[in-house]
Amino acid sequence: MEINKDLPTPLYYQVQEILEDKIISGEWAEGYQLQTEKELAKLYNVSTITVKRALQELVNKGKLYRVRGKGTFVSKQVKENNIFNVVTFGTENEEVNPHKLLHYSIGKAEKTVAKKLDLSERDQLIHLIRLKFEDEVPAALEFSYLVYDLCPNFSPLLTEKDLIYNVVQENDDVQLEKVKIHFSTISANDYEADLLQIEEGTPLIVLERVTYADKGRPVEYSKFIIRQDKANYYIEFNLK
Amino acid sequence: MEINKDLPTPLYYQVQEILEDKIISGEWAEGYQLQTEKELAKLYNVSTITVKRALQELVNKGKLYRVRGKGTFVSKQVKENNIFNVVTFGTENEEVNPHKLLHYSIGKAEKTVAKKLDLSERDQLIHLIRLKFEDEVPAALEFSYLVYDLCPNFSPLLTEKDLIYNVVQENDDVQLEKVKIHFSTISANDYEADLLQIEEGTPLIVLERVTYADKGRPVEYSKFIIRQDKANYYIEFNLK
Repeated sequence: MEINKDLPTPLYYQVQEILEDKIISGEWAEGYQLQTEKELAKLYNVSTITVKRALQELVNKGKLYRVRGKGTFVSKQVKENNIFNVVTFGTENEEVNPHKLLHYSIGKAEKTVAKKLDLSERDQLIHLIRLKFEDEVPAALEFSYLVYDLCPNFSPLLTEKDLIYNVVQENDDVQLEKVKIHFSTISANDYEADLLQIEEGTPLIVLERVTYADKGRPVEYSKFIIRQDKANYYIEFNLK
Repeated sequence: MEINKDLPTPLYYQVQEILEDKIISGEWAEGYQLQTEKELAKLYNVSTITVKRALQELVNKGKLYRVRGKGTFVSKQVKENNIFNVVTFGTENEEVNPHKLLHYSIGKAEKTVAKKLDLSERDQLIHLIRLKFEDEVPAALEFSYLVYDLCPNFSPLLTEKDLIYNVVQENDDVQLEKVKIHFSTISANDYEADLLQIEEGTPLIVLERVTYADKGRPVEYSKFIIRQDKANYYIEFNLK
């Protein structure tokens, strides 16, 4: 694959694809140090601005990382996760992905959250903020709300080493029936960037989950703000 | 809900939540014009920088839109779509969402795409770039690759008014069996921003789809780059 200045695709995107190919094909393994921006610019006959941009996109995608004063390196490839398995505790072993509890409180629902859980603003909610680690690096910021009436025995500390689902089912005997997950994206703000140890403005994956107990009663709402260099989520459907 | 300067949550985020509440609850309907940034800053006793940021986040989320020289307005609420239905042509009527064909060619596979489709670089691929419109506004940029050997009768113009799946099944009698969809996110580059009529740097949703025919043969790879103010995707699972 070579740079083609006649194509409508932007040059930096073409450079990005060439570099990404080398990572995906394994030609550049984990930890491989890239040439300098100047060298790459000369190699592909483009400006260093073009190279900078291609590298920044690959850093945002989690394919590359930078070490100040040293250079740019190829990241560890992230294992892909089937969202269905992650959600239904099929294969994911959450014990190896510890959470740090940043906040725990019980109080009245805010209007936005109350609406998602079909509650009035007078209902009490358990509110957790947790930071999820992978390989000792922050991977996701998780805001969770549980309906207090349905989980009066909820024990927040257990969620540092176990899934909320397991804690709720075991401590409060709640039967979980259905889950609905919305996808969106945000640019990291200073608060998120600081906690997740990334640059402000980095695009992040947002999963919003509402879990329903028997009789369709909403029991839990969580918002997961996820570093995409730490996650590779997919879903599968049969078409027949 | 009021601003609480003692909370660890950033002020702009608190303002954002207050404003979002008014939109979600319907207190502010579609087309409602917000007060000026100065007025909002005075109202919530925060700086105009804080208000600017809260508004920008809501513009990025598609809840608000700006008209130059006029002000900030509440957007039309986007209907939510179950990804399963969108993919399996269950309920989505794609005819009302026309596509504009930007590019069509047949040629050798690039390494990255070949790998996704389990092909060698010698195999021929049909390559389409399309722009999807909703209410006459660009909503998604779609790059598609089809295995030429499996769809020799493929007719690109049909995809301006029909789903690729339908065209493939009807023209080439290909039986589609399974689909796998990956989620990620990017910041709009100049090319994407220009085509999708948004600001550079706006976070976009990326869905990458690989479709398999009988015997598990990959037949199609598409990358959908989606304005999130034009999409609200979710999935549902039973947990029992």
